[in-house]
Order: sequence, then C-alpha cells, then structure tokens
Amino acid sequence: MLDELKIINEIWNLIREKGLGYSVVPSSFDDACALPIGDSFLVFTNDGISESTDRLPNMTWYEFGWRLAISCVSDLAAKGARPLGFLVSLNVTRRLDMKSILEIYKGIADCAKEYGFDIWGGDIGESKEVVIDGFMVGVTKRPLWRNGVRPGDLIAISGELGLTGAAFHYILQGGTGISDMRRIYEAAYRPKARLKLGMLLSELDGVHSAIDLSDGLSRSLHEMARASNVKLIVRERSIPIAKEALEYAKANSLDPLSLALHAGEEYELLFTLEPSCWKQVRDLCNKIGVRVTVIGYVEKGYGVYLEGKEGLRPLEEKGWIHLRE
Amino acid sequence: MLDELKIINEIWNLIREKGLGYSVVPSSFDDACALPIGDSFLVFTNDGISESTDRLPNMTWYEFGWRLAISCVSDLAAKGARPLGFLVSLNVTRRLDMKSILEIYKGIADCAKEYGFDIWGGDIGESKEVVIDGFMVGVTKRPLWRNGVRPGDLIAISGELGLTGAAFHYILQGGTGISDMRRIYEAAYRPKARLKLGMLLSELDGVHSAIDLSDGLSRSLHEMARASNVKLIVRERSIPIAKEALEYAKANSLDPLSLALHAGEEYELLFTLEPSCWKQVRDLCNKIGVRVTVIGYVEKGYGVYLEGKEGLRPLEEKGWIHLRE
Repeated sequence: MLDELKIINEIWNLIREKGLGYSVVPSSFDDACALPIGDSFLVFTNDGISESTDRLPNMTWYEFGWRLAISCVSDLAAKGARPLGFLVSLNVTRRLDMKSILEIYKGIADCAKEYGFDIWGGDIGESKEVVIDGFMVGVTKRPLWRNGVRPGDLIAISGELGLTGAAFHYILQGGTGISDMRRIYEAAYRPKARLKLGMLLSELDGVHSAIDLSDGLSRSLHEMARASNVKLIVRERSIPIAKEALEYAKANSLDPLSLALHAGEEYELLFTLEPSCWKQVRDLCNKIGVRVTVIGYVEKGYGVYLEGKEGLRPLEEKGWIHLRE
Repeated sequence: MLDELKIINEIWNLIREKGLGYSVVPSSFDDACALPIGDSFLVFTNDGISESTDRLPNMTWYEFGWRLAISCVSDLAAKGARPLGFLVSLNVTRRLDMKSILEIYKGIADCAKEYGFDIWGGDIGESKEVVIDGFMVGVTKRPLWRNGVRPGDLIAISGELGLTGAAFHYILQGGTGISDMRRIYEAAYRPKARLKLGMLLSELDGVHSAIDLSDGLSRSLHEMARASNVKLIVRERSIPIAKEALEYAKANSLDPLSLALHAGEEYELLFTLEPSCWKQVRDLCNKIGVRVTVIGYVEKGYGVYLEGKEGLRPLEEKGWIHLRE
C-alpha cells in the first residue's frame, strides 16, 4: 500500500542521507518549518489541492481558492505564526476560462484580507487538471511543533468537531440533511482557521505543542504521539461534538464519535499544555470567544488511546490520508 | 486567446484592486519578490511543472525533479540571490511507484548539493497527472529586477544560445542529429543555472537589471522592455550561438537565429549595465570561466528591435508561453 505517510518517510530518509534538511527546525517531520532570523522565526509551509481530489461537488472556484489559502493559514496558526505573504502556483487546463481563474484568486485574496496576509506572487503553468499549490511565509517569536508534547501535559482542543465529517457524508454519500445545514456547509465550503488562538498560544510558555486537525483528530493525535514519542489518552466523553453533527449522525444512523475522530479538514487546533497553564488558556479563549476543551492527558509510553466506560482501547489512525485505498 | 501573459495581468490587477501585493518589492510584476530584512532581502520564487507539459520524451523522473529545482535556482540567480531552502509540493498519481517518487527527490537533492541550498519541506497530494511545484527562498544584499533597465545601458548575455532550441526540435520534431549531441542533450535534460554569475553581478552597482532566459531570449527582452519602459536594441550579429546549434540548424535547414531567439528554457542570464562597468563585468566573467557578450544597447522609447544589415526591425515576442495556441 503506497500512502502519503510512507512516501513522506522514505523521502525524509533520502533527504537526510544526502546530508540535507538540517538548516531549519524542527528536526523531525512537521507540516511547516522555521528559519531563525534575529530573535524571531520565519515559518514556511506549503499545501496543494487538485480538482479531482479536493474540489467537492458544487464547490465554486472561489471556494477552491479560499480552501487552498485557509489550509496554509491553519498550518501557520498551529505554529503560532502570523502569516505575512502567500505565493501561488496555478496549474490550469486549457478549458478553464479567465473568469474561473480570477474566481480562484478572489477566494485567495479575500482570505488574505480576512487573515491579514499579502499575496506576493505566483506562477502559472498548464496541466491536465487544475492543481494549485500555495506557499505561505509567517513569523513568530516561538514556533509550536507537534514534537513538543511532554508527559504530564493536558491535551486540549478548540471549537467543536464533527461538522466536516457530516458535510463530507452529506455531499459525497448523499445523506439525509437536517433542518439547519449552515454550519455543516460552512465547514466544507468556507472553513475558518484558528489564527488568533494559535498566535496567542505561542506566547504562553506552558503550551508545549500544537497541530491543526486538517487530517482529522485521530491522525493528528497519532502524528503528535509519533513526533513526541509519548502516550496520549483521550477521554471519549470529553470530545466536543457540534450539535448539528450529533443531529446529523442521528438522522443518518452514524456514530457521531467517528464523525469527530476521522473526518479530516477540520481546522481546529489540538495542543498540549502544562496543567498549571490551563486557567490562563481558558481565560484567553473566553476573551476571544473560542470554545476550548481539555480532552485528555499525556503519559510516558507510546501510542494513542481512547478512555471509555470499559477502560482504555487503542485509537485507530484513520483520516484523510492521500493515496491510501 | 487565453495565454499566460494575459492571465498574469488580470490576476495582478485583481490583487492590486484588493489592496494587496504591496509588502514586497518589486512593485511591478517579476518572477520573484523580495522582503527586506535588516540590511538584506529574502527573495522568494516559485515554479511548477507538469508531466504533460514539461516532461520531455525519455526524460527520467530524476531529471524531472532536477528541472523543477534548476528553474527556481535560475530565477534566484537572475535576482543575484543565494538560494537557502526549497519546499516541494508533489502531486502524484496512483500509478506512480515509490521508486519514481524517490527519483524525483534525488534529482532535487542533487541539485541542492550542487547549488548549496537545503530542502526544507514539502507536501504530497494526489492528482490525475504528476504536477510538482517548488518554492525557493534566497538571500541577497541587492536584488536585481527586470524593471531596472536604464537608457544608455549596455545589454549583455552569458553563455551561448540555441542549444535548447536544437534539443527541442530534435526531441519533439524528430530532427536529424549531429555528430556530437552532448551539449544539446544536456541543455534539455540536465540544464545548469548561472548562479555564481548572478550573485557576483548583484554586487556591482553598475549592473542595473537582470532576467533569466527561461522563457527564451525574445520574450525575456520584451519582459524587460515592458517592465522598464525602454527601447532595447539587439545587434543580430552579436548574439552568441553555440557551434552545435549552428551545426544542428544547418543539418535541419533551420534558421539558427530563431533557435537562439525563441526557444525558451535556456538558463543563461540577460542583464544590463552602465558602459563604464563593462570591463569589470568582463574580467569577472573571465575569472569564473563564463563567456559574456554585449549584444546591444538601451535607448529612450519603447520596444525591442533587432539591428541587422537593413537597419532596425521590431523583434517578435515568441517563446515558451504556456496556454498560447
């Protein structure tokens, strides 16, 4: 089975064997990297989407452009970095008209206005389907990584989960809708990133690590456990699930916990912190109007476990993994 | 006709109308941009290639990876910037095997070793054909742009032209080969960038502008004329054409001047300088073993002209323009 995680590992090994990859932090694999400049860090991230894989049915080109930009903003948010500029590689087909191309850029430009970054440049080429890649540069005094988790930390999460899972099920599998679909649609077609939260978290020394949920909660937890070599225990009943997701799950006989754990493309932040820092984090989240929930804790050891009524059970790593059957 | 130049113009207008694009230099369109940091500039560039458009027949995946990286190195060379790091967005198909993916990265890694930059990170996604986008970060004290040309400047060029034109004709149109095809093959499958030259030129205040020839000489001249609003006059007989290109043109009844003017993907540098700086540039090129030729001069006015036996005639803008019929 040729999947994204395997490919990344092999590529990373190759790069290291060539003596490369050492001039930036972190030393382990992450979805961004940082270059120390003076007393700050420039943070670089890139993300790509293709029409066949990432453009949902009825997704406008405007939303497709927004989706590319927001995934980069979310990556930087998880590092606690303020985005500065964005470069876009646009690979378009001959059948795409000028209006559609400009719609992609309008989505990107509106995202830039909303999150305060600039569009610095780009490149245009031709391919058999529309593929756009974005490169975002940000800045922070203290980047957060997925490899900073420490035994004794609490595991916390912003917002509520399950909306994207419900949206994907509804759009891709033709599920039964509920009376108010607004937040479910928004999760899929016009997602937001937790930028302000991420930037504030990076200012708190008691916050040790962060990752966004663009690959889904279960995979993100596993990424953290792998990068930090720790045991993460998540209390099943603590996972905050949006009421629309609960309602949608009921209407479609789905397990709401699965929607929350394995959907991917949720742009909430998962982070760990010293217990003594919790009050500060909670007050800060109250101030900026972001729900925050402690969903578990970290121990020495390895792996990711769900704590339910029957004790601990390993949490399967499922989510949005490209190229996996 | 929907072509790359039109698309770029429309996108640029849209970005400016949104009040974006102002936090970097240059203010006009270029293929890279720079962010002032202390007394230096970080320079950012990106480039993308797709299997259907850019992978020549018999081009290995290794060469495909090299080709992506070298085009970014060449962009930075034209700005006089030393490359620091590279991020790669790899969009692959399900039929591409691990070996091929690693070959792409080997080509990139070997280019990194040769030109002294690091591989900082990347992203992997899935698409219907292989599309890879690269994002390179460099540094310089004084970036050179295509908009710096001044009336009175000399126009100079590194190396010899026509090899890529010959290669493309041979590979894509099945031309008749000549006895020694080595440099012709190298131009197409394993191009080099003029990095050392570009970095040295940026240290000379008398050098006012530079651009690489990745889009071909005629288009690059027009880009310079547009960006700087000047009249460029190129002496037909001064354009340095490689002897293999002359020989190839003869064997195939082609106009060698056309091969030199309109081929694209030549990674030589085109630059302009004060006449008083010429001796310094020539000596410097001698020292690093790079041929350099004055091919023309700059006047007030607008446009690009060839100076031949019958006087001046406008030089047509032809080259490698994506999406143009």
